[in-house]
Amino acid sequence: MGILTSAGDLPVNRDETRDTVRTLYDAYARRDFERVAAFIHDDIDWVIYAPLSVFPFAGPRHGRAEVLKAMAGIAAAYVLENYKAEITIVEDDRAAVISDVSFTQRATGRLLRFRVANFLRLQDGRLIEFREFSNSFDVVEQALGRELNL
Amino acid sequence: MGILTSAGDLPVNRDETRDTVRTLYDAYARRDFERVAAFIHDDIDWVIYAPLSVFPFAGPRHGRAEVLKAMAGIAAAYVLENYKAEITIVEDDRAAVISDVSFTQRATGRLLRFRVANFLRLQDGRLIEFREFSNSFDVVEQALGRELNL
Repeated sequence: MGILTSAGDLPVNRDETRDTVRTLYDAYARRDFERVAAFIHDDIDWVIYAPLSVFPFAGPRHGRAEVLKAMAGIAAAYVLENYKAEITIVEDDRAAVISDVSFTQRATGRLLRFRVANFLRLQDGRLIEFREFSNSFDVVEQALGRELNL
Repeated sequence: MGILTSAGDLPVNRDETRDTVRTLYDAYARRDFERVAAFIHDDIDWVIYAPLSVFPFAGPRHGRAEVLKAMAGIAAAYVLENYKAEITIVEDDRAAVISDVSFTQRATGRLLRFRVANFLRLQDGRLIEFREFSNSFDVVEQALGRELNL
């Protein structure tokens, strides 16, 4: 190991990444948000790609406090019903996951079901980079309970 | 090698997958659609998650002929300007890629720029499974050239 190597520079093992991602997703699926919060790195760089006008917790967030606030925003508006990873791809410190998810909208009781595609990067066993994609046009229509007028 | 092993059952090497995905993306980025077409498996299972009302080439497609038709639909309506992979994650026969892409809408000259997240699976050196996510709400607004009225 070179003298300049610091903890953050250690090569990350694929199996370690897979274990951490699995633990993180299992915790989220059983709504153990405290356990999830423990995996959020202080310097996390996070984006949910969706319109803020409909999903105020979406968009870019920097740092642990902002991300926990976004997650609290999701939980305030939606009850997580189901979160099932369908495809997981892991390489070194990164993972990509497609999940089949469903949420009940608290204000209306409406059930939203869609797929999300997440890209994650870990550092020191925690989540430091996060990108979430979905078919946001479809999710907006489900959230509003009607087709959008184009 | 077991007597029941057929070509399709051979374990796929990560480096092989990475090379094929890179070749495929390089070909697409330089608009060599014939080269891309050669990588489409006969039995491909393909979904672009976006509204068909705005992007008629989106949605699920099965088999090579349908996919080539969808790709021709994209090329008929949009000129590919830029396609740059930003994050690539490879494991065995699968890859996930986030790209920064831009297209000119032929009908209006409008430039659309957005990110796409692709999940790919290869078989026999060809693309047999494909999922494309984007912030489709934002891409619809860019395609229409105006904000959607919610």
